[in-house]
Amino acid sequence: MAGNTFGTLFRVTTWGESHGPATGAVIDGCPPLLSLSAADIQEELERRKPGRLPSASPRHEDDIVQILSGVFEGKTTGTPISLLINNRDVDESAYEGLRNLFRPGHGDFTYQAKYGIRDYRGGGRASARETAGRVAAGAVARKIISAAGIDLFAYTRELGGISTEAPAPAARPVGPLYCPEPEAEKRMIARLEEVRKGGDTVGGIVEIVVRGCPPGLGEPVFSKLDADLAGALMGIGSVKGMEIGAGFAAARMTGSIGNDQMGKSGFRTNNAGGILAGIANGNEILIRVACKPIPSISIVQDTMDIHGNPAAVQIGGRHDTAVIPRIIPVCEAMVCMVLADHLLRQRAIQW
Amino acid sequence: MAGNTFGTLFRVTTWGESHGPATGAVIDGCPPLLSLSAADIQEELERRKPGRLPSASPRHEDDIVQILSGVFEGKTTGTPISLLINNRDVDESAYEGLRNLFRPGHGDFTYQAKYGIRDYRGGGRASARETAGRVAAGAVARKIISAAGIDLFAYTRELGGISTEAPAPAARPVGPLYCPEPEAEKRMIARLEEVRKGGDTVGGIVEIVVRGCPPGLGEPVFSKLDADLAGALMGIGSVKGMEIGAGFAAARMTGSIGNDQMGKSGFRTNNAGGILAGIANGNEILIRVACKPIPSISIVQDTMDIHGNPAAVQIGGRHDTAVIPRIIPVCEAMVCMVLADHLLRQRAIQW
Amino acid sequence: MAGNTFGTLFRVTTWGESHGPATGAVIDGCPPLLSLSAADIQEELERRKPGRLPSASPRHEDDIVQILSGVFEGKTTGTPISLLINNRDVDESAYEGLRNLFRPGHGDFTYQAKYGIRDYRGGGRASARETAGRVAAGAVARKIISAAGIDLFAYTRELGGISTEAPAPAARPVGPLYCPEPEAEKRMIARLEEVRKGGDTVGGIVEIVVRGCPPGLGEPVFSKLDADLAGALMGIGSVKGMEIGAGFAAARMTGSIGNDQMGKSGFRTNNAGGILAGIANGNEILIRVACKPIPSISIVQDTMDIHGNPAAVQIGGRHDTAVIPRIIPVCEAMVCMVLADHLLRQRAIQW
Amino acid sequence: MAGNTFGTLFRVTTWGESHGPATGAVIDGCPPLLSLSAADIQEELERRKPGRLPSASPRHEDDIVQILSGVFEGKTTGTPISLLINNRDVDESAYEGLRNLFRPGHGDFTYQAKYGIRDYRGGGRASARETAGRVAAGAVARKIISAAGIDLFAYTRELGGISTEAPAPAARPVGPLYCPEPEAEKRMIARLEEVRKGGDTVGGIVEIVVRGCPPGLGEPVFSKLDADLAGALMGIGSVKGMEIGAGFAAARMTGSIGNDQMGKSGFRTNNAGGILAGIANGNEILIRVACKPIPSISIVQDTMDIHGNPAAVQIGGRHDTAVIPRIIPVCEAMVCMVLADHLLRQRAIQW
Repeated sequence: MAGNTFGTLFRVTTWGESHGPATGAVIDGCPPLLSLSAADIQEELERRKPGRLPSASPRHEDDIVQILSGVFEGKTTGTPISLLINNRDVDESAYEGLRNLFRPGHGDFTYQAKYGIRDYRGGGRASARETAGRVAAGAVARKIISAAGIDLFAYTRELGGISTEAPAPAARPVGPLYCPEPEAEKRMIARLEEVRKGGDTVGGIVEIVVRGCPPGLGEPVFSKLDADLAGALMGIGSVKGMEIGAGFAAARMTGSIGNDQMGKSGFRTNNAGGILAGIANGNEILIRVACKPIPSISIVQDTMDIHGNPAAVQIGGRHDTAVIPRIIPVCEAMVCMVLADHLLRQRAIQW
Repeated sequence: MAGNTFGTLFRVTTWGESHGPATGAVIDGCPPLLSLSAADIQEELERRKPGRLPSASPRHEDDIVQILSGVFEGKTTGTPISLLINNRDVDESAYEGLRNLFRPGHGDFTYQAKYGIRDYRGGGRASARETAGRVAAGAVARKIISAAGIDLFAYTRELGGISTEAPAPAARPVGPLYCPEPEAEKRMIARLEEVRKGGDTVGGIVEIVVRGCPPGLGEPVFSKLDADLAGALMGIGSVKGMEIGAGFAAARMTGSIGNDQMGKSGFRTNNAGGILAGIANGNEILIRVACKPIPSISIVQDTMDIHGNPAAVQIGGRHDTAVIPRIIPVCEAMVCMVLADHLLRQRAIQW
Repeated sequence: MAGNTFGTLFRVTTWGESHGPATGAVIDGCPPLLSLSAADIQEELERRKPGRLPSASPRHEDDIVQILSGVFEGKTTGTPISLLINNRDVDESAYEGLRNLFRPGHGDFTYQAKYGIRDYRGGGRASARETAGRVAAGAVARKIISAAGIDLFAYTRELGGISTEAPAPAARPVGPLYCPEPEAEKRMIARLEEVRKGGDTVGGIVEIVVRGCPPGLGEPVFSKLDADLAGALMGIGSVKGMEIGAGFAAARMTGSIGNDQMGKSGFRTNNAGGILAGIANGNEILIRVACKPIPSISIVQDTMDIHGNPAAVQIGGRHDTAVIPRIIPVCEAMVCMVLADHLLRQRAIQW
Repeated sequence: MAGNTFGTLFRVTTWGESHGPATGAVIDGCPPLLSLSAADIQEELERRKPGRLPSASPRHEDDIVQILSGVFEGKTTGTPISLLINNRDVDESAYEGLRNLFRPGHGDFTYQAKYGIRDYRGGGRASARETAGRVAAGAVARKIISAAGIDLFAYTRELGGISTEAPAPAARPVGPLYCPEPEAEKRMIARLEEVRKGGDTVGGIVEIVVRGCPPGLGEPVFSKLDADLAGALMGIGSVKGMEIGAGFAAARMTGSIGNDQMGKSGFRTNNAGGILAGIANGNEILIRVACKPIPSISIVQDTMDIHGNPAAVQIGGRHDTAVIPRIIPVCEAMVCMVLADHLLRQRAIQW
């Protein structure tokens, strides 16, 4: 209940601080007899690592995952799966000057307000490093949903103000930004480089598409599939908005336009984004999340110290210019977890 | 876990179908010694009832709430508060023709897919009538957060394509649509009337403002305050998108613009919408939710029956033209519940 | 989390005070398509009512249950089942003298300590009346486990110091005390009458047998089947001890005696009581619970008032002489709930 | 929900198999600003290790705990505390012959029935080794309850049929069996040695006393303090029964004897064992748990293999002769966790 566990039947607890000895996740509720190896998980972690872009954080973490429990002779046993990722490239010194300062746009101030104490090194628990555990757990969730015929991936819809109108692609785009339109991707990369040189950062929009979700997944009132997806995605650091299907555009539609009428081969449109009354309707699930710019900029900013005195801060250290593309596997992981959880929940009530 | 309970410490379970004998809610975890009467709850329920507008549903429900437990001599006792609202004006006949048809934009198809059975009368559990229990429970949650100095209300930011740029008002607007700009409200009403005459419906955008939220509320990773608010609001029928603070606009900002820098008197801007790293920072919490048009239109639509055959459907019955204004108290109720829950959670860990 | 909800997938929330307008239960997580009528539930409630014995409480409650939701055309729909039982024969006056006194052996003192307020009439929430909701919910749980081939019932092993060594019977005994040995039952009844005349009360031991439980139900570490059964049964008012299989006698066994060895037709003995390492092994599950005497005696007792002053108290009102036989259906209900919950949990992970 | 997490606000998830690379626990919900070091935890782990007795298992584990997160500069931060204990002395070969056999009295058969797969080495997840994580987490829970003035410890009441009638001691006894009567302890040790020589094992009874528990801890109906304690203790491997206060003896009492009347200085007796109506009354909490003999005996036993064929099995490997004394710190840990959880829950509702 203290907010580090996610899910009801497929339950993931992550732990770890940016500059502690390790981070990790424990998965409870994974069904037995699924094939699972560290390599399956490593593959997803590789996509979360920096290095796809010249503008990326130069922090080098090997991010090698170890499976400490719950797998025997290559198969899950139904018992908790403990995943451990050691922190290797920890440089505390860069943060010493921030011990008493609240970085604008970061959780420094709010963690101090909540707990009266915080591990200031690299943002502590609020660091994006925490998402390594999510991505690792998401790789296990993906095993479950793949077995049910569900495929999902995320890609870049907009970055630094440059957007693409390309339709949802058939597979995850292969470019450094996972953008479905190569020409737009080039302009996004140029924009990133330009912003990085100015010591600034940018935001963007990620789109996630889910295909093959069986109709019936979801719950009726409070744990609707869209509500759980919203909670999952809005809980990723830097996400400030989300929409499903027509989303905000639906607010400007009339019912006669917005309703997805049915013909011989099913729904003719997909303004619902694959979810009706909180339950999957078998259509593509289409979600967009809005990410704010990374708050760590190297431009001097006004702030406060922990004693309430005005102060100026200039962030050093190693930082990305945008959460895209590294947030892409995190978004996927969260959606995988939600769907795995709802699959198990549905099995429990289906005769 | 079956999706009809909300919250972790302040827990609300709603129950009831549109055309069953009653609907209601049970609240478990309400602290003792709060003053509470049926009148306190009734006041909120009145705002959910139809009748603020000529274009509203003519269904007449007295919506009289009874407190069946948990209150003794005017005070909460700490035991479960059971709230009962009888359904009085139930007209099943209007729905008889829909027994085997899936209404476009409704949960008929997905409920059938999930459960293999559904109470087709008035949408059953998927009816907006279910929100009566939420609003009643929200009135109790409001008692808790008011005691902590938190004030919150919602209002109309946009309806049927007509929007207002008025700033967040100091108190809940009093007009029939709770619009902070009377002139815009007039145009919205005219738009509603016009659409209603064409047998159609419209969507809109609701904005919610929270003031006085103490910094520190929220959780670090999976039950962040913004994630829980997203889950709460995206779980209201017809909501297709939500954003906090700068929201989708943040995706187009740079870090130097988007970061809320601090000066002598606190944060200078509020792009974060009052929440940083999932935890309240003491600023106004500002949320917008996008509502799709009501799917019940009187225009003939193409659909399918439960045997998979194509069919045409024309919805009769009694329906509103927009979820606004009746969704306003529902949005407020959900936010009240989230904040009450996080207040209790924070008390548990604060020495 | 405030202790009025039971179960993880089959979730029961009870509410209500002894002398409030009604008591009830809401079940969330019941699978759809089960046949269910009020009569099914009423049958179990009848067994909880006073009247099987001359020594029973003369309080007359019709205990008529209404199903307010979750059932449509005779079948469960998968949505919450709300059960309501009105309190009819409420006589507050008998309790007026107890407003400020803590009755020995009752929860008066501890409720006051916990909440700073209590509904003193008839014990409020701590009254055995609360168990009506449990029994009603248990009747629904029984539908689920019966469908899986599980049969269970409880009976009296000991009462007022008189015990029977009869083996676990094939079906629930039909006598007024559900005792498997009619001759012992006669002596128990005589003992009850004798004690009642002296204004005193007695305790006893209930035994519960479960047959047909499929091997595999249970969880590995913290929600073991025996642990959940213990939590369920020790949470019934007046239960002070419980044991499974050989129970306390196992503490005096050697391993070579206590181990249940297996032969061609399965386990040769059942010291484990049907549960090994927290998981059902397919054997009979055999549980005994020890019930203390009812604390409401008409003999004058020393106590304290809410101001801390010494006081004498003599309990009037209407009370039973022992919790047996009325606790029998409550024990059954709790075991039904635990098994229904574990059945659904097992289905979620079984491919 | 898959049974490897315990608690509602102070939540402990354990993971790990007997012969995997490591075992551990993650604690979520520990309040910030508590002093905590690995040494605090190590101290409790030392008491769980073999070696207090000549008859103990010769398995040598250093059981060195590492704190991987949630502690910063010697204080808890409010974020998850991840505890890791590497398995060092793993000898798989001793178990190779058991790959396809179900050891009597063990979870081999039931794990296979539940999951269709099991890590047969050393009992896998069902091994007592799993309790290392519980003991480590219990040490953190003890920090919380000690800060609230609660003291608790366990000791041996009976072993191998030899019991002591000594009153609950003032502090944890220091002898190898934690027996409050040294003379009885000598006879217990002699009995253990005698049984061990015969290749057999014995059971016993552990008693736990809690002092300083503030009145008011507990919940009203389903998560009563005694119910949660029962669930906690009956979930320890080998526990087959538990009782609180007068326990099973209460079943033979009359109300006039069993009721704890109050005088000027509080309760005159403690048949309730410190808990009334599920809530602590401020008295000593006194609990007894019955432990079956360890099932691993070196005498040949009849059993079945995984194909259903009869087989004989003789257990080699390294095993204790009784779960006492090593179960003593495990019992303490579980009670510490329950009380820490209820303390936090009570704080959430107390104004």
